[in-house]
Amino acid sequence: MDIEEVIKEAVGIVTPSLEERNRVINTANTVVKLVTDGLLKRGYRDFTVAIQGSVAKDTWLPGDRDIDIFIILPRDYIDKIRSGDIINDLIDVAVEYRLSWSIKYAQHPYIQLIINDFEVDVVPCIRISPGERPFTAADRTPLHTDFVKTKLMQRTIDVRLLKAFLKSVNIYGAEIKVRGFSGYVSELLIIHYGSFLNAIKAISNWSTRYVFIDMTNTYNEKDAVKKFKSPVIIIDPVDPSRNAAASINRDTLATAIAASREFLRNPSIKFFARTQYVEMELKLVLPTMVIRAPYPEGVSPDIVWGEVTRLMALLVRNLRKLGFKVVRSMAWSDDKSIILLMMIFEELELPRYELHEGPPVDSDAADSFIRKYVNRQDVVGPFIRGTRWFIVRNRRFPDVIDATRHIISTVSLKHLGNTLARSEYIKVKSINDIEVFHQSERAIVKEFLWSRPWWLT
Amino acid sequence: MDIEEVIKEAVGIVTPSLEERNRVINTANTVVKLVTDGLLKRGYRDFTVAIQGSVAKDTWLPGDRDIDIFIILPRDYIDKIRSGDIINDLIDVAVEYRLSWSIKYAQHPYIQLIINDFEVDVVPCIRISPGERPFTAADRTPLHTDFVKTKLMQRTIDVRLLKAFLKSVNIYGAEIKVRGFSGYVSELLIIHYGSFLNAIKAISNWSTRYVFIDMTNTYNEKDAVKKFKSPVIIIDPVDPSRNAAASINRDTLATAIAASREFLRNPSIKFFARTQYVEMELKLVLPTMVIRAPYPEGVSPDIVWGEVTRLMALLVRNLRKLGFKVVRSMAWSDDKSIILLMMIFEELELPRYELHEGPPVDSDAADSFIRKYVNRQDVVGPFIRGTRWFIVRNRRFPDVIDATRHIISTVSLKHLGNTLARSEYIKVKSINDIEVFHQSERAIVKEFLWSRPWWLT
Repeated sequence: MDIEEVIKEAVGIVTPSLEERNRVINTANTVVKLVTDGLLKRGYRDFTVAIQGSVAKDTWLPGDRDIDIFIILPRDYIDKIRSGDIINDLIDVAVEYRLSWSIKYAQHPYIQLIINDFEVDVVPCIRISPGERPFTAADRTPLHTDFVKTKLMQRTIDVRLLKAFLKSVNIYGAEIKVRGFSGYVSELLIIHYGSFLNAIKAISNWSTRYVFIDMTNTYNEKDAVKKFKSPVIIIDPVDPSRNAAASINRDTLATAIAASREFLRNPSIKFFARTQYVEMELKLVLPTMVIRAPYPEGVSPDIVWGEVTRLMALLVRNLRKLGFKVVRSMAWSDDKSIILLMMIFEELELPRYELHEGPPVDSDAADSFIRKYVNRQDVVGPFIRGTRWFIVRNRRFPDVIDATRHIISTVSLKHLGNTLARSEYIKVKSINDIEVFHQSERAIVKEFLWSRPWWLT
Repeated sequence: MDIEEVIKEAVGIVTPSLEERNRVINTANTVVKLVTDGLLKRGYRDFTVAIQGSVAKDTWLPGDRDIDIFIILPRDYIDKIRSGDIINDLIDVAVEYRLSWSIKYAQHPYIQLIINDFEVDVVPCIRISPGERPFTAADRTPLHTDFVKTKLMQRTIDVRLLKAFLKSVNIYGAEIKVRGFSGYVSELLIIHYGSFLNAIKAISNWSTRYVFIDMTNTYNEKDAVKKFKSPVIIIDPVDPSRNAAASINRDTLATAIAASREFLRNPSIKFFARTQYVEMELKLVLPTMVIRAPYPEGVSPDIVWGEVTRLMALLVRNLRKLGFKVVRSMAWSDDKSIILLMMIFEELELPRYELHEGPPVDSDAADSFIRKYVNRQDVVGPFIRGTRWFIVRNRRFPDVIDATRHIISTVSLKHLGNTLARSEYIKVKSINDIEVFHQSERAIVKEFLWSRPWWLT
């Protein structure tokens, strides 16, 4: 199949049915009406309740369960937002209409309602004009919606294709868990490059060093790179002081480039219809450690993933220092009950002894180094190599699990700390070792062990 | 025992007995007479036959078997030296007096006679004055002898102490095998520092970065360091364009510093009376490989050790590249029949698989890398880590002996090449594995495994 045919078929997959479309819009309109009525009844004035996000821009994907409703308030409501009064009023409204609700936290709190299986976020913000300094990050959203609606025109299907593509290769989403491409960035890319295929072609030629897109013509490239320090810089058209692509890290950038190249070389419908975690046929199982940690209760994913990311970087760095060769590492979570921290090594157990570098022979420290070790029965040396003293001593942590537990004991992680103490530390050396995992986790562990992007054939 | 007492006792050890002294001087004088008569008889004129080296300077050590006799010729004999005519005449003399002789090779050939168990080197050279450009390196020797005899005065015993000290810690000798301190350098150090103890104190404060001594006041330090590029620079007083200490490498410099410090801290007579290769009591045997190579027949030690040094550096460098952690390495030879190349590792067998870095995802090479490996059953990946593609593949040489044989097969060594093919490659993992070595080699292997300078307690 050539690329045009693949894209034609993909359009069918990424376009919501009329029925689904009606369900989403009805649900959104219902909430707009309830919130409007509820707030009017409670004395709010001069506000607008508006559908925002991908529903407003008609760029949502079939199966999406998120609807954004913004309450756009005049400036004199800032104190009511900051104090949380408006949140209390919104809870009041939800209770009055018997809606199931919960409080969520971004820069400021907002309300999430569950209606007809949709998660409807109800977010208060302040009305600002383009170029005006926002009070909270949420204030920009209505400007983004207006900009995209004006510029995108009939190219909503191209945004849907791009979002589905990015989602399928696991780099869609600005949240810390993904560190990838937001919906807004996907829309900006289509506006900038004109179509899905042009965007993919452009991405396939991106450099991993940095990417710079400025539709506002505010910056020269060098200054922008210095100022924003992100691998991908897309100047936000509604606020040129902001990098709309700040969430994208170098890893997701690399995946975007590689997947685009692969799609152009081997166009396939699979890039739009990822069936989650196919069980891979494993030919080879490399030495692997999996930490199976219970998910910290009542903590939001962005907080948990902040700690997971920090912990993984720290483990990789420190296990390397201790002599372990890390092949690759990945964290996974269902964001409800379980976190899997997975690492492949060249070997899980290191030699019993290790070379230890001492001081230069001409340094003051040389004497005490010699005295410390010269009568130790469990040490070989001291001996001179080049211009330094060395010894060979018992390796403190020859086993990767001991080493990992030690490293973990030295870090303080507010939420994961407690959870890691109650974790299982599992060595996977052969396919049979996967049996210890719950059925639902096996496909994830196997795909990790398989170690190839699923889209690579 | 305090340091003065130790030195007093050491004087007794390093001073030759009257009887030995007579034997050496008689032997030297006999050769001087025979060579003088023989050359006169063969028409040589205007030459001097003179005792040179440590016998002339009275700085030789008990047990030394080397005597240097130089034939100092006027300039018009250069052609006779270069053509080898004089060597033929000397052989003629040796045959006439029924002396056992052999030809040796330095910059020019010379004759070695074996008389009364002494090795008497008979070396022709051209008479030059201080500051004059020598025709061969040997021409400087009479100038060195004159300089030392004039400057050293009654401090010959200090030279003997220093030589015995350097010898005992295995850093005495300018030959490639040792890369250490020559006799002449030992004499210059005593002339410069005034006494054995002052020299040791000075050395203990040397830096491993570089040492600079210029009794001629020809250079400033910076220029000399730039010009000579050796770790130890001792400007030759009879030829300031030459570094008398060029033979000393950074390893022997480091040992000199470390041993001097140790001697000052723990003065002991052992530093002057090294009993060769005591069998060490091994507490721990680290994973070790020994290559037991036959000595290449009829090749001079400087040539062999040049190749041995090159090979060892190459093995260390390339085994590291292949993933082996080299703890330490050493070569030993009796300079007759056997060479031992010994290396300690953290482990002799590496994991079966290794991580292999591929090209950046945004490079032209990425596609062919993916195509090359994507269908290989014995490879894990390709996967993206950071901004590059990686795979895990079978390690080509998981065993240190296979790796070593492979490295050796890629180098061309004129004399060792043939010998290495007929070598034994031995793994030593426990004390029992030492049984495979000949009785005479065991102490050497054990001292290597013991891995502590013998003088360190």
